[in-house]
Amino acid sequence: MNAELISVGTELLMGNIVNTNVAFLARECTAAGISVLYQVTVGDNKARLCDAVKTALERSDLVILTGGLGPTKDDLTKEAVAEVLGRQIIRDTHSEERMLAYLRGSIYKEIPENNYRQADIIEGAEALDNDNGLAPGIYVKDALGKKLFLLPGPPNELEPMFRNKVLPLLQSFSEKLLYSKMVKLAGISESVAETRIQDLIQNQTNPTIAPYAKSGQVWIRVTAKCTTKEEGMRIMKPVLDELEERFAEAIFTLEEEVSLEESLIQLLKERNMTVTTAESCTGGLLMGTLVNVSGASDVIREGIVTYANEAKEKYLHVSHETLKMYGAVSHQTAYEMAVGAAKMAQADAAIGITGIAGPGGGSKEKPVGTVYIGCYVNGKVIVEHYVFRGDRRKVREFAVNYAMNQLRKAILESK
Amino acid sequence: MNAELISVGTELLMGNIVNTNVAFLARECTAAGISVLYQVTVGDNKARLCDAVKTALERSDLVILTGGLGPTKDDLTKEAVAEVLGRQIIRDTHSEERMLAYLRGSIYKEIPENNYRQADIIEGAEALDNDNGLAPGIYVKDALGKKLFLLPGPPNELEPMFRNKVLPLLQSFSEKLLYSKMVKLAGISESVAETRIQDLIQNQTNPTIAPYAKSGQVWIRVTAKCTTKEEGMRIMKPVLDELEERFAEAIFTLEEEVSLEESLIQLLKERNMTVTTAESCTGGLLMGTLVNVSGASDVIREGIVTYANEAKEKYLHVSHETLKMYGAVSHQTAYEMAVGAAKMAQADAAIGITGIAGPGGGSKEKPVGTVYIGCYVNGKVIVEHYVFRGDRRKVREFAVNYAMNQLRKAILESK
Repeated sequence: MNAELISVGTELLMGNIVNTNVAFLARECTAAGISVLYQVTVGDNKARLCDAVKTALERSDLVILTGGLGPTKDDLTKEAVAEVLGRQIIRDTHSEERMLAYLRGSIYKEIPENNYRQADIIEGAEALDNDNGLAPGIYVKDALGKKLFLLPGPPNELEPMFRNKVLPLLQSFSEKLLYSKMVKLAGISESVAETRIQDLIQNQTNPTIAPYAKSGQVWIRVTAKCTTKEEGMRIMKPVLDELEERFAEAIFTLEEEVSLEESLIQLLKERNMTVTTAESCTGGLLMGTLVNVSGASDVIREGIVTYANEAKEKYLHVSHETLKMYGAVSHQTAYEMAVGAAKMAQADAAIGITGIAGPGGGSKEKPVGTVYIGCYVNGKVIVEHYVFRGDRRKVREFAVNYAMNQLRKAILESK
Repeated sequence: MNAELISVGTELLMGNIVNTNVAFLARECTAAGISVLYQVTVGDNKARLCDAVKTALERSDLVILTGGLGPTKDDLTKEAVAEVLGRQIIRDTHSEERMLAYLRGSIYKEIPENNYRQADIIEGAEALDNDNGLAPGIYVKDALGKKLFLLPGPPNELEPMFRNKVLPLLQSFSEKLLYSKMVKLAGISESVAETRIQDLIQNQTNPTIAPYAKSGQVWIRVTAKCTTKEEGMRIMKPVLDELEERFAEAIFTLEEEVSLEESLIQLLKERNMTVTTAESCTGGLLMGTLVNVSGASDVIREGIVTYANEAKEKYLHVSHETLKMYGAVSHQTAYEMAVGAAKMAQADAAIGITGIAGPGGGSKEKPVGTVYIGCYVNGKVIVEHYVFRGDRRKVREFAVNYAMNQLRKAILESK
């Protein structure tokens, strides 16, 4: 079953708000085995809205509209759909009763007349009760049996209505299930990863294989069309095995929901290790990323940002000689930062990062993007040298991702 | 001039990522006096992508496509547009040289063959240099003179390319000039800000007034239609004066490009002050945000993350009694953290943050989202208590923004 999502609202067209609804609906539909092929956004304009609905009904089996169900003159979604289907707008007494009960004892002293518009539905449609607002949703079929859902725009009304009222209906429409795994890689560039699986991508049928690039991470989604979860796993297995063989320890998880920082924190927990950080160019971003993992406090007690050379000497005991002879951005400094941080925090593992995030500070030998990362694990230190491309923010994102992955690998190798 | 925005990417159709690019482009186009009438998202599928481009060229004067310019087989935007326009794909030597220069000496040992695809453009098109990635943008006109822009998907590549390369072209298409200021507020909620300017929004003609919410910041864009910059400033002045009267010191800048962290760093530089941070729940995010300002090293030498209670005692000398009696998340602890951080770093200003980012750790008295922020300025300390709403990430973003603003205000009041 193919779906089309139509978002209605001039505030979306003007960019006043980010359309999180469409991401929510797309994710939910995909998980329910429904392929979303088009997402369209139109403003509060009846002619263009009618056009969008007509086009959607020509090319999609299922059309989900969000927004434009409110009480104001700008809210035109019901009128547009009714016009395209050639139906009347009628008052739904059940929805009217619910609305009156909802408004009674509310902030309104009297119920504004235009509120009643929200109890109107399309002839032949089914009202979907809204437990978090006034406008009910609407489910209606066209003459060919194509399905339309009209849902409210506010996310706190849309999401529960979708999960509780729409999803059970959708699941009853669909024959096939989609089951997917996300193979997440770190420490490898997008184009290298892509080149290494070109043949798999070219020959994909079921499962499908799709890579996505992040700053310093590559994600490969493997999706099987199946009738049961077990069948999905069976269909996927040869491809997952192949990816594991080709990428080995660059893979940090197969789970969509697990981030690199979570997999690192989890590994530290398993090994019963604590970790600390000493950051220069990343200025706290690495620790900030680690601490964003819920429960990070089991393995993290402290971290330090030593932006100035004096701070590197004072807290981490990076030697004055090292800073003078090799500079703050050097293999030696990263080494001493990692060792000093571990000692300062009495931690089992430590990361020291020093680099040039730009835009200034680069030289021919050490261009902007040069980053040295030292990882200390139980007394052993590995320093790696990178040159990342991009603006200040990008260089720092890369540094954080590569640092987490470097520590992850160092711990795995230290067993 | 009417525009249509086409986002390309299966990850958008599947809801793996939220489409922030389209909101950015819509906002920028609207501000430039261009009406966005349609936003369409399609996957990495050539037939549907071609259809979308054809439809867009029928109904819009300007078509902006994002995504699908990368090196992989999935990246089809150029091919689709070339097909619709009946043009060839050709290698752009300038872009190829830029790409090779960019990759030379980078983390790549060899340059994968598929990277060269990124130096291809459409016959008759103009390449737009990408200063933050490999794929150049493309500007091309169809036979009727309708304009198409093909821009990269990663926001850190898209946004500067749009501002620096596309916007000047767009402005040259339009007869009227648009001149705008961004009134940026911190420390005030969106709904309070909106209520306070409801009358201005309702009566807007020229200039227009549009508020946007960020986590802990509210931005109000004031835009004048004019023929000269001077006229634009004259048209805007009464509204800007009114906003300054209504929001006073909550305004930290009128410049689109200036962030809250930049305005804080700038203020510190002007006062010749140094700053340090002691973070618990934000775990380094505050310092990471400050350090992201280019030239932050003039005012920042160090910062510390004291996640565990012992670290708060060891480095900041938060008293054991305080932690025992009031808890780590308390007015008293935030106070002692700020004082301790200033002393440790011998800084003129310091921020101490302690709170409950969630999802666990909340209680009836101190629910998730409770954050205490202490600001030390030249010996004086102000502690504020907040309860932020949202998930772990959101609470931390709010805390960082409110902390920066609290210090900004404390410094302004300390003169």
